[in-house]
Amino acid sequence: MNYSEKIKQAIKKSRSNLIIGLDPDLKKIPEIFLKKKNPVLEFNKSVINATKDFSAGYKLNLAFYEALGKGFHESLRGTVEHIPGSRLKICDGKRGDIGNTDEYYAKSYFDEYGFDSMTVNPYMGRDSVEPFLSRRDKGIYVLALTSNPGSEDFQQIRTGKKFFYERVIEKCIEWDRYGQTGFVIGANHTSLIKKITTKYKNISILIPGIGAQGNDIDALMKNIKNNIFLVNSSRGIIFDSSKFTSIADYEEKTGSKAEALNDIINSKKRNR
Amino acid sequence: MNYSEKIKQAIKKSRSNLIIGLDPDLKKIPEIFLKKKNPVLEFNKSVINATKDFSAGYKLNLAFYEALGKGFHESLRGTVEHIPGSRLKICDGKRGDIGNTDEYYAKSYFDEYGFDSMTVNPYMGRDSVEPFLSRRDKGIYVLALTSNPGSEDFQQIRTGKKFFYERVIEKCIEWDRYGQTGFVIGANHTSLIKKITTKYKNISILIPGIGAQGNDIDALMKNIKNNIFLVNSSRGIIFDSSKFTSIADYEEKTGSKAEALNDIINSKKRNR
Repeated sequence: MNYSEKIKQAIKKSRSNLIIGLDPDLKKIPEIFLKKKNPVLEFNKSVINATKDFSAGYKLNLAFYEALGKGFHESLRGTVEHIPGSRLKICDGKRGDIGNTDEYYAKSYFDEYGFDSMTVNPYMGRDSVEPFLSRRDKGIYVLALTSNPGSEDFQQIRTGKKFFYERVIEKCIEWDRYGQTGFVIGANHTSLIKKITTKYKNISILIPGIGAQGNDIDALMKNIKNNIFLVNSSRGIIFDSSKFTSIADYEEKTGSKAEALNDIINSKKRNR
Repeated sequence: MNYSEKIKQAIKKSRSNLIIGLDPDLKKIPEIFLKKKNPVLEFNKSVINATKDFSAGYKLNLAFYEALGKGFHESLRGTVEHIPGSRLKICDGKRGDIGNTDEYYAKSYFDEYGFDSMTVNPYMGRDSVEPFLSRRDKGIYVLALTSNPGSEDFQQIRTGKKFFYERVIEKCIEWDRYGQTGFVIGANHTSLIKKITTKYKNISILIPGIGAQGNDIDALMKNIKNNIFLVNSSRGIIFDSSKFTSIADYEEKTGSKAEALNDIINSKKRNR
């Protein structure tokens, strides 16, 4: 099964286009987890238990795992293994290096840790993207238009008749091998999301920036014109300022938040 | 001491502008190390012992350490700790993410592992670069013109009167705080190195692509017009197809290669 089939299956089976961002910031993990031997892993397992019925998959930002030093490998591996097989496992590392080196990233995160896809930074061009495309069942999300303010600095520069990010999208579609290339487009870029998903009906997109980054899910949903989209929420689902009395209490509240967001996405999707 | 002072001191003390790339590819590490408990760490220690008198510092490409899975932390930490304090420790991870996330990369690699500087991918713009600039004594090398063929795809696109990489350099110089921003420019871009180091006399550059990537050190040296430059060699110094009879034998041959390359750089530098 190639990666685009895998996305469609995951969306269908889970009745969800929602991706939960597993970004275990130790400063924000609820206190009840901090007594555990491996707080990050136990926290992640609880998030997965709580949200797996309302989400198509999980995105793990590697920065939070690398910050664990000695605990990097165990926490990352344990988390990936806890994700149900029918759900997507997205490695958010924004990597990109010369071919010889990228092979190592691909081997680690696809073959060793078992991720289904990776986020990739396109700045170094073709041979920095291609090593991630040699496996038919594995995909990439190329950074096109990110959700942060700095997106304006380079991505939206004019280059002749096109914007820079448009050249990135066109080139990466050209380099694709097995329909495995998608793009990261921030939820704040609503009009550009409309433009891109209208122009490229079969494009696969991963949309961060909902929740803590403060963008409006209604406005976003009105502007998504294709079907292979995934909306990521991290901090807005997994963290909360409330005190939790137990892990069961955390899981119940977190599950409800994921369910509510998923319901909104599904109802807006039907009514587009 | 700010980072640019640190570079100058390292170059002066070591009488070298050479950086050794510690990219411990397990398929290429000489057999004599493979029997060791931690082959990567023992190999790296030997490279450091052999080359420390002929180099200004070391660059560790994280891809090769992440590929170690469980051994990631120990091999990375052990290697960094073995590098003499007067030599530069460059973390080559080509990271770049939204501010909140980049803080974690900065904390890990600057504060926990103790690197002096990091390579940074500029694609996500200002707030993806700035978290690496809050420590006066730590520096960054922003990817400007990389040494791989893909450098043509996006970095060398025209944007109005300038090339894309020129906008990257200008913006990053503007964002700099304590004179801590340098740039990665591949050894193959000789005429652009001349142009850039003539225009920006005080620019700090890190030049990969010598050795295994096949670029000519003579042509390169003629075109470097400033003094704060570092030339990186990885595979060309640390790997060799010869059979080694012992670790001492490996260290002797590797040291000679580093010494010879350093002598060439120094003599070409004097005669520019």
